[in-house]
Amino acid sequence: MTATTTDFQAWSHQQLQRVEATLQRVLPAPDLAPRRLHQAMRYAVLEGGKRVRPLLAFAAGELADADPERVEIAGAAVELIHAYSLVHDDLPCMDDDVLRRGKPTCHVEYDEPTALLVGDALQSLAFQLVGEYRLADELKTQLEMVKLLAAAAGSRGMAGGQAIDLESVGKSLTVPELEFMHIHKTGALIRASALLGAHCGNGLGAREIGQLDHFAKLIGLAFQVVDDVLDSESSTATLGKTAGKDAKDGKPTYVSAIGVSRARELARELRQNALDALAGFGARALRLRQLADFIVLRKF
Amino acid sequence: MTATTTDFQAWSHQQLQRVEATLQRVLPAPDLAPRRLHQAMRYAVLEGGKRVRPLLAFAAGELADADPERVEIAGAAVELIHAYSLVHDDLPCMDDDVLRRGKPTCHVEYDEPTALLVGDALQSLAFQLVGEYRLADELKTQLEMVKLLAAAAGSRGMAGGQAIDLESVGKSLTVPELEFMHIHKTGALIRASALLGAHCGNGLGAREIGQLDHFAKLIGLAFQVVDDVLDSESSTATLGKTAGKDAKDGKPTYVSAIGVSRARELARELRQNALDALAGFGARALRLRQLADFIVLRKF
Repeated sequence: MTATTTDFQAWSHQQLQRVEATLQRVLPAPDLAPRRLHQAMRYAVLEGGKRVRPLLAFAAGELADADPERVEIAGAAVELIHAYSLVHDDLPCMDDDVLRRGKPTCHVEYDEPTALLVGDALQSLAFQLVGEYRLADELKTQLEMVKLLAAAAGSRGMAGGQAIDLESVGKSLTVPELEFMHIHKTGALIRASALLGAHCGNGLGAREIGQLDHFAKLIGLAFQVVDDVLDSESSTATLGKTAGKDAKDGKPTYVSAIGVSRARELARELRQNALDALAGFGARALRLRQLADFIVLRKF
Repeated sequence: MTATTTDFQAWSHQQLQRVEATLQRVLPAPDLAPRRLHQAMRYAVLEGGKRVRPLLAFAAGELADADPERVEIAGAAVELIHAYSLVHDDLPCMDDDVLRRGKPTCHVEYDEPTALLVGDALQSLAFQLVGEYRLADELKTQLEMVKLLAAAAGSRGMAGGQAIDLESVGKSLTVPELEFMHIHKTGALIRASALLGAHCGNGLGAREIGQLDHFAKLIGLAFQVVDDVLDSESSTATLGKTAGKDAKDGKPTYVSAIGVSRARELARELRQNALDALAGFGARALRLRQLADFIVLRKF
């Protein structure tokens, strides 16, 4: 373990604690009516998940010299959107999955209608946070954050990617087609995470925002390629979700499209291109670089 | 038919055309990818519905001297939230209904996973509108609108009301308990409609906003009481949704709690109290008064 790795571990540990504390605080209390819904919302969000999106918001926030008290709210909002999408994806009419983040999925632990409402209410809560807390120097920027998060979550972003995913079951996609799907399904929200983190600060011009966005796009794809590789090689216990499920469900993956070895190579290429996109930033982009490595080199 | 009624009909006809044109415009085009999702979103929103919430936004907008080009966006945002809630409510795991607004429900016309994503994406689109268009004189007010809409849609508003509804199946509720459910399930979004319409203008102080909110709360309850009466007395063809379904599903209604005759009386009382709340506004509140009558005296 190198000094830099240790340093990143300490940093990410600190940010993760911050994210957990923020999510704990912004989620409605478990004894607040309607209690079962609030308990299920907390179940779906707390204690679990790699929190890659909030970490990316924090790393981008450092690039833009942003107040961490703002970034923690922006990061929580993005994580709430992500958590809602997992709850809905796991429903019987979608992926029908029983295990998520090492626990029974929300509809298994509670019930299907509750899980549906949990997802719906988590999405609302995400926008409530962006409307309620002061997140940017300029209010105009903060409204831009509302729009950005909504577009990333919506039919031309994450939800649209899910729809493309549904249409792709049983088909064999080319790498450009897989890219198109993932740029929507996971990429849009990952890019939003970076941009929201940056908008909490005021250090970046339009060109730098464009470079950060490009970095996030590449790292989002790398994240998905690595996910596909891990899904094909790991056990359910290690992943905390059902391993090999995509392949079993007839969903196209990078591994099914180009094989494990080429997929690993692709992840390394994407990482290198992502790091190249940060070239102009210097030391301010340290956490973004480390996060890129963490995402590509992770084992779970 | 009195002169005033004709006048209201002409006014509401004009506003409804405006709402339809706005929804047509802000919904993603049917030939835009992912096409099936976008077609299903349009199916779920366009051509149908009484559009009570946008009408309320327009009436409150007139009270606050608001630009109709702003109010039409705010009204569309509220209607998108309402439409998403109907799509999710109709799903097999919730009310399992096959008819809505005189057409097959979204999951019947398309499929269940698509309907789930339609609801999710409509919610995102609502917030995208409030983030994207200039809706208020002060940006601070516009962020307040984001927060207000999100709170009205979320676990302490509409989604929470749905959860309370789920818990109430097979129970016999008292009138205060019914009120508590409906204040969340339908009331929160109806109040948000009025407040969003008013925030598009700049004519109202905090006290007047409070009076408008009180009016909307009462009229929201009246709307629900009338709904229960109509549901118990009308045919499926007249309603455009399955008649008598709540009673059949063991859901408590005002009719099951206090009978048809007392429910009609309650609706009249709520209307009178709602009109009283507008007493200080004078002629500016004409459309709100007419809308209260329309809601309570409607036959469908």
